[in-house]
Amino acid sequence: MSTPTNPSFDIAHLGHVEMFTDRFDESLDFFTRVYGLTLSGQTGDSAFLRAWDDYEYATLKLTRHHTTGVGHVAYRASSPEALARRVAVIEASGFRVHGWTDGDESHGRAFRFEDPFGHVFEIYYDTVRFRPKGAEVPALKNTSAAFTGAAPRRIDHLNLLADDVTEFRRFMETCLGARVTEMIALDNGRLGGCWFTVNNKTYDLACTEEHGKGVGRLHHVTYATDSREDILRAADIFLQNGVHIETGPHKHAVQGTFFLYVWEPAGNRVELANAGARLILAPDWEPVVWTQVDRLKGQAWGLKTIETFHTHGTPPVAKDH
Amino acid sequence: MSTPTNPSFDIAHLGHVEMFTDRFDESLDFFTRVYGLTLSGQTGDSAFLRAWDDYEYATLKLTRHHTTGVGHVAYRASSPEALARRVAVIEASGFRVHGWTDGDESHGRAFRFEDPFGHVFEIYYDTVRFRPKGAEVPALKNTSAAFTGAAPRRIDHLNLLADDVTEFRRFMETCLGARVTEMIALDNGRLGGCWFTVNNKTYDLACTEEHGKGVGRLHHVTYATDSREDILRAADIFLQNGVHIETGPHKHAVQGTFFLYVWEPAGNRVELANAGARLILAPDWEPVVWTQVDRLKGQAWGLKTIETFHTHGTPPVAKDH
Amino acid sequence: MSTPTNPSFDIAHLGHVEMFTDRFDESLDFFTRVYGLTLSGQTGDSAFLRAWDDYEYATLKLTRHHTTGVGHVAYRASSPEALARRVAVIEASGFRVHGWTDGDESHGRAFRFEDPFGHVFEIYYDTVRFRPKGAEVPALKNTSAAFTGAAPRRIDHLNLLADDVTEFRRFMETCLGARVTEMIALDNGRLGGCWFTVNNKTYDLACTEEHGKGVGRLHHVTYATDSREDILRAADIFLQNGVHIETGPHKHAVQGTFFLYVWEPAGNRVELANAGARLILAPDWEPVVWTQVDRLKGQAWGLKTIETFHTHGTPPVAKDH
Amino acid sequence: MSTPTNPSFDIAHLGHVEMFTDRFDESLDFFTRVYGLTLSGQTGDSAFLRAWDDYEYATLKLTRHHTTGVGHVAYRASSPEALARRVAVIEASGFRVHGWTDGDESHGRAFRFEDPFGHVFEIYYDTVRFRPKGAEVPALKNTSAAFTGAAPRRIDHLNLLADDVTEFRRFMETCLGARVTEMIALDNGRLGGCWFTVNNKTYDLACTEEHGKGVGRLHHVTYATDSREDILRAADIFLQNGVHIETGPHKHAVQGTFFLYVWEPAGNRVELANAGARLILAPDWEPVVWTQVDRLKGQAWGLKTIETFHTHGTPPVAKDH
Repeated sequence: MSTPTNPSFDIAHLGHVEMFTDRFDESLDFFTRVYGLTLSGQTGDSAFLRAWDDYEYATLKLTRHHTTGVGHVAYRASSPEALARRVAVIEASGFRVHGWTDGDESHGRAFRFEDPFGHVFEIYYDTVRFRPKGAEVPALKNTSAAFTGAAPRRIDHLNLLADDVTEFRRFMETCLGARVTEMIALDNGRLGGCWFTVNNKTYDLACTEEHGKGVGRLHHVTYATDSREDILRAADIFLQNGVHIETGPHKHAVQGTFFLYVWEPAGNRVELANAGARLILAPDWEPVVWTQVDRLKGQAWGLKTIETFHTHGTPPVAKDH
Repeated sequence: MSTPTNPSFDIAHLGHVEMFTDRFDESLDFFTRVYGLTLSGQTGDSAFLRAWDDYEYATLKLTRHHTTGVGHVAYRASSPEALARRVAVIEASGFRVHGWTDGDESHGRAFRFEDPFGHVFEIYYDTVRFRPKGAEVPALKNTSAAFTGAAPRRIDHLNLLADDVTEFRRFMETCLGARVTEMIALDNGRLGGCWFTVNNKTYDLACTEEHGKGVGRLHHVTYATDSREDILRAADIFLQNGVHIETGPHKHAVQGTFFLYVWEPAGNRVELANAGARLILAPDWEPVVWTQVDRLKGQAWGLKTIETFHTHGTPPVAKDH
Repeated sequence: MSTPTNPSFDIAHLGHVEMFTDRFDESLDFFTRVYGLTLSGQTGDSAFLRAWDDYEYATLKLTRHHTTGVGHVAYRASSPEALARRVAVIEASGFRVHGWTDGDESHGRAFRFEDPFGHVFEIYYDTVRFRPKGAEVPALKNTSAAFTGAAPRRIDHLNLLADDVTEFRRFMETCLGARVTEMIALDNGRLGGCWFTVNNKTYDLACTEEHGKGVGRLHHVTYATDSREDILRAADIFLQNGVHIETGPHKHAVQGTFFLYVWEPAGNRVELANAGARLILAPDWEPVVWTQVDRLKGQAWGLKTIETFHTHGTPPVAKDH
Repeated sequence: MSTPTNPSFDIAHLGHVEMFTDRFDESLDFFTRVYGLTLSGQTGDSAFLRAWDDYEYATLKLTRHHTTGVGHVAYRASSPEALARRVAVIEASGFRVHGWTDGDESHGRAFRFEDPFGHVFEIYYDTVRFRPKGAEVPALKNTSAAFTGAAPRRIDHLNLLADDVTEFRRFMETCLGARVTEMIALDNGRLGGCWFTVNNKTYDLACTEEHGKGVGRLHHVTYATDSREDILRAADIFLQNGVHIETGPHKHAVQGTFFLYVWEPAGNRVELANAGARLILAPDWEPVVWTQVDRLKGQAWGLKTIETFHTHGTPPVAKDH
């Protein structure tokens, strides 16, 4: 197989994440009333949620399950042809293939496959657009309307844990044509973390090393806010609603993102982030490489990373109990 | 010629704008000390400037000239192959071609062509990256360092005036593979304005109708800030430095951008803008269409557009004198 | 009578404003759901409202009435002794005295008097503190909890219209021991406006010249936000809720306050404002005097003051119909 | 002696702090170029500095010395009569009196006295106002002009260390007529910290328990910014200039202040803070009391207080070496 075009442009953007929760009602209350997503619809064991500027029907599919963690990760292709091209590449890649599914309320048929660490991915083109009705109709044509809770603007990225970040990188570059924008190169020669994008966002998926022997685990899912002030305000909202604030607000050294991490009621880590006006526009972007020495300086303004940030993932592993 | 792929991905991003000034020293003082760009270098009659997060050597080429206005507009291609593809398309397009130039301090050879309204464009791939030295070396690897004046983050877009926006749209779609994200459809059937992007930015070039019978005129050039607070602070800086504030800070209805317009010493209109976390991620984006009735509501929060915004362009036309 | 001590310290702060509305239900819905005050209680024809950091039970008493406008303006005294001293001064002042009232749900007995232009004032010491219960109990002891609507922090000031601002100034200095922080001196020798404070706030009451031959009219009532970002966000909330945005967000030249003016459903003008960290700390503050020439420059960043800002007051006068 | 009136109103506000530095040139460079104060003048071993909205000639007197720490703390009285009243109270108080000094470039004669823990205080009325000249003349009459470095707005407060906070409280209430707005009540019956104000500011001086057996030590000096965004921006400026960021930005639980602590080149801790629109307006304010259990929750959003925050003061004590 030839070197994947970098970026391939075949994949347009991160579409949605399916999150598992073993406290469905509490999680749904959190995501709608506190975190501030809006409920597009509900069916069987899943609720379909979106941020106010997400153009699709759902960017978070919250599913009742006996565990927490991530159900699947979905990217939207740039066109039907691009979808077909990607499927051919994935089928030839040697990575595990699940095959086509019919989709659900939020999108049409999707092609599923799996990374070597147990995370299920899908790519799709046919989607369902959000069409506002009644009080949802925005005052301006190019915006939407939601001011409940933290009310982030759009889905931003997610972070998955993997035993071998280098192998995960091969998966992302091969299957999605993603490119690396920043990475952590450890002294032992391994990658400690890797940040990927399929478009001009600085990253839509990050992978960091699994330290808990878990399989297919989620580190966090993130929505973007318009400003850092939105995140400071969200911190007060989380505090008032008894949400566990893990760390932040502060600024990441890697990617320079202003962040705030909380745990939703079932324990999945959720972030709010603001990248300012930063974009990756250079077609020949040179990945930023952080060394172990760099990382010892802590976050951008010196905050030491909290211990649970390195150990907590969902679902939890035995030793977490 | 077949319908251009939309978007084509052949063009990566707006690279730089050459701005003419008949008050070179004052303009350069404004852009460096007040507006807060940094000077990468100077040669002959041109100064090469960049914002702190621009990865290229220059995004504004400020050139001493007997008029004001725009010298040329440059887009960077995604690869050498993409550049070749675009050149072939442009040569076959029927639009006026200038041919190859050698480039300058800030980039390699570039292919020049012209829209039907007198604006010169160029596309190029070979570029010169900014490599910080001495005090410019940033504390973090993925950022840069500038806190002088308004200090915007990166070049964002420019706005050109044209007699026939519909024809300009054909030019942009054909030559650059740009796509339209928003537009104004007047009651007389004409387009009042059209906003284009070649990537995930909401727009990198806008075209609005020329009402002054000028040729090849510039409406404004814009740099992006990380926050709306940066723009509020900039307003105070401009005020203190005696800069003519034309309108803003306020929020555009079209595109929802938070804006501030000032005139640099020679009279060219310059904007600072913040789009929050808004991006155009949908590969099948449905352009937002604003009607004349919509426009009567003024800007997003009701501000009536100031008269000079409709009449002032550079270079000025006879009736402006 | 001798020159009043300046400041007297006898009056602690603006306590509350009674606002009349002839659309009670719509006004109450606006103030609670959109503007974001919280309802402390309701009795007969009045609703008692407060902002989340107001320590008293009510800072806005919204009263059903056949007109709009201001019912009365209340200041809290610094102590029972200070209250007695002020009452003695007012009784000796020659200004019209109404005498003692019993107070209401929100405070104890109050002494009422009137300015020469028909506005009723009262001063009181005994008050009712807000004591949070249930979901209102804040996560931190020194704060409160409200994130609905624009959710301003505390009452800030009001603006009254008067035929003779100089005479109104004499009233404020005499009766409340207020001091002038800024004023507009017109070319005709009259005061165009005057800003007063009884404490370290930059102003808690402003008076501007009545141009409509109205009596006892209100120009606006204002609550303070913690940041300018809060006001930008509020503008979006007002827009989405169909509230008439009159002018702003922008920065006043006078006082430097960042402002946003809207009309509540009955037509009373309501402002949100942020003064940053500005305080009047100098005991011998030299009032800032703005001339007519200064005012021609518009607001701080050049915005021209909208016509209705000079004409609209409540209740409306005949010619407004 | 009778119970002091609370508040007395005799003291108007914190006037200035004299800070000692054993690295005078580096400290002065930090305060002017990075922290963003402006230099009003220099004489002998002292530089006189102010923030852009401080109305006096100097709010920070930076003095070359063989140690770091605080030289003296100065409050301005409300009037000459108030000054005389306070002097009488202090002379009768039993606290150590130094007597009258002639003042310096920044103010007239001052009365000096000392707390039981070795900090020298002074009160004065005659002052020198800042009168802008040339480029310092602001574009608006009620503001000033400085955009260098972090450019805070005005002096806010300082924090002193004392072996016995309860006794320090008696000193502040007696000598300055200060009132307590918040305090930490330890399980051992001692006060862990106490926050004082003489006006409507939430605090202008804090005292926390000395754990290092030092005498007359300074914990930190703070200037106020207009917004939290100013503080986030300052963090980047400090980072870029190699300034030691100790902790923050974050929000204090006590007082709810948004904060950022850095060490100036000689080691004195300096803070930037924003209190939003919070003021203490109630004349009968009920102090907020924090228990040891409350404090275990960390700062407002859960940040654990960094160890050096409890141990580092200036001048350093033996064990710090």
